[in-house]
Amino acid sequence: MDSSLQTPHQPLYRRLAAHYLDAINASTLRAGDRMPSVRELVRQHAVSLSTALQTCRFLENEGWLEARPRSGYFVKAAKRLAVPAITEPDMRKPHDAAQFVGIHEKVSEIISKGQRKIRINLGRAAGAPELYPGKQLNALASRMLRQRPNLFSKQTSPTGNKTFKTVLAKRALSSGMTLNPDDILVTYGCIEALNLALRAVAQPGDVIAVESPTFYGLLQVMESLGMRALEIPTSAQTGISLEALELAMRTTDNIKAVVVVPHLQNPMGSIMPDAHKRRLVALCENHDIALIEDDSYSALVHDGLPLASLKSYDTTDNVIHCASLHKALAPGLRLGWMTAGRWQARVNMLKYAQTRYNDEWSQSVAAEFMASPAYDRHLRQIRTALRTQRDLTADAIATYFPPETRCSLPNGGVSVWVELPTGSSSKKIFEEALKHGILTSPGLLFSNSHRYDHFMRLNCGMPFTDEVTQAYAQLGRIVRDVAG
Amino acid sequence: MDSSLQTPHQPLYRRLAAHYLDAINASTLRAGDRMPSVRELVRQHAVSLSTALQTCRFLENEGWLEARPRSGYFVKAAKRLAVPAITEPDMRKPHDAAQFVGIHEKVSEIISKGQRKIRINLGRAAGAPELYPGKQLNALASRMLRQRPNLFSKQTSPTGNKTFKTVLAKRALSSGMTLNPDDILVTYGCIEALNLALRAVAQPGDVIAVESPTFYGLLQVMESLGMRALEIPTSAQTGISLEALELAMRTTDNIKAVVVVPHLQNPMGSIMPDAHKRRLVALCENHDIALIEDDSYSALVHDGLPLASLKSYDTTDNVIHCASLHKALAPGLRLGWMTAGRWQARVNMLKYAQTRYNDEWSQSVAAEFMASPAYDRHLRQIRTALRTQRDLTADAIATYFPPETRCSLPNGGVSVWVELPTGSSSKKIFEEALKHGILTSPGLLFSNSHRYDHFMRLNCGMPFTDEVTQAYAQLGRIVRDVAG
Repeated sequence: MDSSLQTPHQPLYRRLAAHYLDAINASTLRAGDRMPSVRELVRQHAVSLSTALQTCRFLENEGWLEARPRSGYFVKAAKRLAVPAITEPDMRKPHDAAQFVGIHEKVSEIISKGQRKIRINLGRAAGAPELYPGKQLNALASRMLRQRPNLFSKQTSPTGNKTFKTVLAKRALSSGMTLNPDDILVTYGCIEALNLALRAVAQPGDVIAVESPTFYGLLQVMESLGMRALEIPTSAQTGISLEALELAMRTTDNIKAVVVVPHLQNPMGSIMPDAHKRRLVALCENHDIALIEDDSYSALVHDGLPLASLKSYDTTDNVIHCASLHKALAPGLRLGWMTAGRWQARVNMLKYAQTRYNDEWSQSVAAEFMASPAYDRHLRQIRTALRTQRDLTADAIATYFPPETRCSLPNGGVSVWVELPTGSSSKKIFEEALKHGILTSPGLLFSNSHRYDHFMRLNCGMPFTDEVTQAYAQLGRIVRDVAG
Repeated sequence: MDSSLQTPHQPLYRRLAAHYLDAINASTLRAGDRMPSVRELVRQHAVSLSTALQTCRFLENEGWLEARPRSGYFVKAAKRLAVPAITEPDMRKPHDAAQFVGIHEKVSEIISKGQRKIRINLGRAAGAPELYPGKQLNALASRMLRQRPNLFSKQTSPTGNKTFKTVLAKRALSSGMTLNPDDILVTYGCIEALNLALRAVAQPGDVIAVESPTFYGLLQVMESLGMRALEIPTSAQTGISLEALELAMRTTDNIKAVVVVPHLQNPMGSIMPDAHKRRLVALCENHDIALIEDDSYSALVHDGLPLASLKSYDTTDNVIHCASLHKALAPGLRLGWMTAGRWQARVNMLKYAQTRYNDEWSQSVAAEFMASPAYDRHLRQIRTALRTQRDLTADAIATYFPPETRCSLPNGGVSVWVELPTGSSSKKIFEEALKHGILTSPGLLFSNSHRYDHFMRLNCGMPFTDEVTQAYAQLGRIVRDVAG
């Protein structure tokens, strides 16, 4: 069997499908191209006839292939949304020299303004409450309260909730990670995990290579720790530029870590191809630089295919894997987790001294839900909803925004990244939109530079009601005004 | 039944005994006084004859009463706890030069050993679960789940739970603090508050003056932040030595903060006199050194009288007040809070970047309970229980430990500080006791030096069952063995 298909713990046909999906995403196979025939698949990948058939049918059901009578399977004309893709940056060198982050004031200004009466929140990076299984979680929590009268009156366990960690370890198998529950540290959200990871591997003044653009949460963590950010150009298709990163590693002192979101990058939505992941892991290993991955979104990829984590390529304990349940399961539970390779003892120490162990109730509620078939059912539903909402969002942008607008079209997640005509101030748009009760995330929050001032991140995690459509119409008018 | 007797989860005769123990402790009943007769008890407390008899026999067995033939029960000559107070240190100068903390390995070794099968946990610094209103909190939490289907599916509020902060501000009035709810930051326990406070005022390498001995949680925070500890001699009666602290401020560079537990100091239980508090606040102001107070225990002072916080003496926003509900309300809710004077904006930023905002559920549950009369009722009950348990603990130490043993006798809180004959290794005692399923906190955890190796902290937060008595008997044998 083809060695590239050996992501463990996944049915073979899904792995084969993922392989061809990679090829489609990378435009190796384009719309109209003929898919290798079933017999060719059998021969090339040493799989059974039935596996080859299952692969093609799966891709057809997911909308990637169409069967033409007597001719076989063909790559479907991608449902091209009328918005062009965002401009790819020059991927050959880092954007700027490493610098201390000074983003917090901008962010708090935005957040405090966001406290005003908001009708439509297009600024957040989470789904709307109705996309999550709130009632089911409440029912589980209620049962737990009946069964455990000491839930709040007993100290939390110093080892964390074993059941929860076991569930997480089981789920991690599909990302290619084989973890012992004891290798898992439960945290208050992925933000705490990133904090602990950076504190474990770097000191104040050290340089951290980050994607550009990246989410402001990460920049704030670095600012609060006095670390310097080195912004590496990042593609909306394939993620961080390995060329620019490699150059940076050769020419910049004191890079202590690289932080990336390999799947559904925030804010652009890029998914790193497996070959890139392998190279990135090797690159960091060779330069003895820690690799920190934030894998909070991968459960929200539209096609539901498991994605191999960077950690799954790690053979030297050099990757720190961080994730949260905030986006996929419950925005109101502050649950994240991490596995930290050679820094595990150090992050355990830092966590204990920082916030002690997470409380029992949230871990137990999440564990019970995630161990049941309800979790996969929920994930299927939220993915379907998110795909629809992404398409409707792109349609709305095509309809209401100026024709020069460009937009990322991520294959999952809760937001799109919008590129406005150069010179449009997303801060001005933010302020105007606020007057109409619409919250946006202006691009200036996503970098230490002013490089993304004409970008903005818009939420597509909300059911597309008339009110949302009207908000897009209003936002379009504001963008046209500001863009002049 | 007398309402003061309504401590749940305890046989009635024990509660009645605690009531009379209180009266003896408060000298309402003195040595030689006649105890109400069994018939009087039956009448006054509406209990059965057998309960009244059990009560008297229990108090007799515990050594508080003696039966005189044909005359009834009498209060025994004050069983002054036969354990002398612990040795006061030389209060004139700091113990050692400032040094980096290296405590974590010792602590994790102890904690990991503590994972074994423990029958009696005398190592923790919290009350036993039965001292807390678990069922009442669960009932409130259940109701909230019914009322708020989006509790877990909605992002947490960026301003924190206003109701909770209002309740905290109201309660703070009795400590002499006038706070706006917006001046309050809710944290994951007091440990996170101390973290944020230290990060706000100091950098790695800076010196922090601390009480000696102090609780290992604080030393671990400092170790994790790379700060140096300057240990200031501290009295079991009056708290930190102001003379030694003043000398340290004049002679040591780079002291950025002083951290103290003014009320029921951990581990010694000292309560700082108000005149000392005033001087301490002025001293820090004059030297432009931040003063951080951890006020987590003051609700557990036996007489229930409000204690003025250090913050209440602060006129220049130089005091950071930290507290938690972990000891007083619910060890299983990770709830702390802080008000940070001139560093408020900075701690808000650090908290946002560290763990975001605390989840809604625990804040709402705590807010509702604390706003009701049930909270004060609970505090009265837990204080009574803790007083009884402290006395019984001191008795057990007097009975079973070597006669050279000394012991703090705190007027509240959940632990006593035991001084063993010089040369006794509390680590050895810890290890021997563990073999019998008894967990202790050896003194070496409470300092960066080996100054307290012949001390240990023992929990008095547990109802004194036969099993606890037996554990003390066992521990006494071990101490005698180890002390030779």
